[in-house]
Amino acid sequence: MERVKEISRVRELVGAAREDGGRIGFVPTMGYLHEGHLSLVRILKERTDFVVMSIFVNKLQFNDLNDFDSYPKDIQRDMELAEKAGVDLLFLPDDSEMYSNNLTVVDVHEITENLCGAHRPGHFQGVFTVVSKLFNIVQPDVAVFGQKDIQQVSGIKKMVTDLNFPIEIKVAPIVREKDGLAMSSRNKHLSSEERNNALALNRSLHRAKKMLMSGERDSSIIIEAMKEEISSVTHGDMDYISVVSFPDLKDVDRIDGDSVIALAVYFGDTRLIDNMLIEFTGDSLNCII
Amino acid sequence: MERVKEISRVRELVGAAREDGGRIGFVPTMGYLHEGHLSLVRILKERTDFVVMSIFVNKLQFNDLNDFDSYPKDIQRDMELAEKAGVDLLFLPDDSEMYSNNLTVVDVHEITENLCGAHRPGHFQGVFTVVSKLFNIVQPDVAVFGQKDIQQVSGIKKMVTDLNFPIEIKVAPIVREKDGLAMSSRNKHLSSEERNNALALNRSLHRAKKMLMSGERDSSIIIEAMKEEISSVTHGDMDYISVVSFPDLKDVDRIDGDSVIALAVYFGDTRLIDNMLIEFTGDSLNCII
Repeated sequence: MERVKEISRVRELVGAAREDGGRIGFVPTMGYLHEGHLSLVRILKERTDFVVMSIFVNKLQFNDLNDFDSYPKDIQRDMELAEKAGVDLLFLPDDSEMYSNNLTVVDVHEITENLCGAHRPGHFQGVFTVVSKLFNIVQPDVAVFGQKDIQQVSGIKKMVTDLNFPIEIKVAPIVREKDGLAMSSRNKHLSSEERNNALALNRSLHRAKKMLMSGERDSSIIIEAMKEEISSVTHGDMDYISVVSFPDLKDVDRIDGDSVIALAVYFGDTRLIDNMLIEFTGDSLNCII
Repeated sequence: MERVKEISRVRELVGAAREDGGRIGFVPTMGYLHEGHLSLVRILKERTDFVVMSIFVNKLQFNDLNDFDSYPKDIQRDMELAEKAGVDLLFLPDDSEMYSNNLTVVDVHEITENLCGAHRPGHFQGVFTVVSKLFNIVQPDVAVFGQKDIQQVSGIKKMVTDLNFPIEIKVAPIVREKDGLAMSSRNKHLSSEERNNALALNRSLHRAKKMLMSGERDSSIIIEAMKEEISSVTHGDMDYISVVSFPDLKDVDRIDGDSVIALAVYFGDTRLIDNMLIEFTGDSLNCII
């Protein structure tokens, strides 16, 4: 595995891999890798010949600078995990390599208006801007993003279509701990009590799934049940529990087409997100938690 | 010369040219070609092996829909001129090929705040968005833009740097009619009286040049003299006469570094722009009109 800090060197190495006829795969990350990230690498190993991972904690997407400062880091461990997973090129740019008096922004409207977009002003603009940069630096054939950040991946898919990036976007399933907690670099911040309480996220999604399977289609009734599940363990902030259409992410009152149930809840100071994809085939539906 | 309407076909043909080891050049236009556009093609013929021109009147960049509707078109003549100039691939997309419920925007802040940006809300966002799309469709090695749209080319250079597009941007000099009027597709709208009056644009720039050469450095004194030149022939709207730094386009009171003097004036219903680049080498300066 090559470790590279310079954009020009990434271009050289990717260019050489492409000249050898290789397809290029790309996983952008903010580091502090967990099994979720590594599952993305494995998806690319099956589909491409040269896997690039970036680790860059992108200040532009942090609406809360305390959150930026406390974002967990362990670059030594990240390098070992990336190498073991089969990453060919690890791109570790400094802030100054990525930004120099940046004035350009990329944004996707509508799709970013609710869910996390409503609670983290500027967050998605920062994501789309840095992902555009990384796409232009790496020029991958395929890039993969996790379902866990469902609004991010919906926005990126729309951006790629709208701006004609010649890149295929894959969505990878959420990877969970054995007890159901969705993997997240932020889980590290949880006390053991908070971690235990956070299992209510997954429980609430399973409760929603059960209701859907028994024929419930009313969003507000499902949301109420999920709220009950969450309030039983935390009196903290619930940013949102929402039912939205997929992939355009508009609030829906009734679930009768592809949808997402998504939620963001604070456990102590740590904000966690989780979601479930609901896919319809005719009248039957499939819930992907 | 190949004429193509489909994005996928552009990708095929450009891909084939690149596989043959060719460097790709690109000129985006809105058609109704004149000598200014053709000079851009000639610049690319010298530097690249395969020249792509697009003709697409991009609705997104028209803040005034009357202006969009009346934008001149003569596609038959354009095709002949493009072929004669040596264009290899002419991309002529329909609106539906370019936009389908577009939600994504690219914008460059600061650089678009004054000059035309202050008078044409949304214009530059439309330009940057469509140019990003075209860059991703054509994936050229070099793209060329005219100095005449100085704010456009400054913004595009900044966008390319900020978003790491792997594309070299060339700026081509303004091409003028024998009597000094800068070539523009919009000149077609001028009556013969208006056309005669419009020569004041070029005259005012030459007057500014003369003042600069005799040592004048005060922006407001130069602007006053230019205003006088313009007001002698038209009582119509002057959108602006501005002295700004280059390439960041901030208003400057004194001219003591690379700058642009730019103006936008209505002659009848037709809004024309023109400008002069001022380059410093030590204390001596060079005016490029």
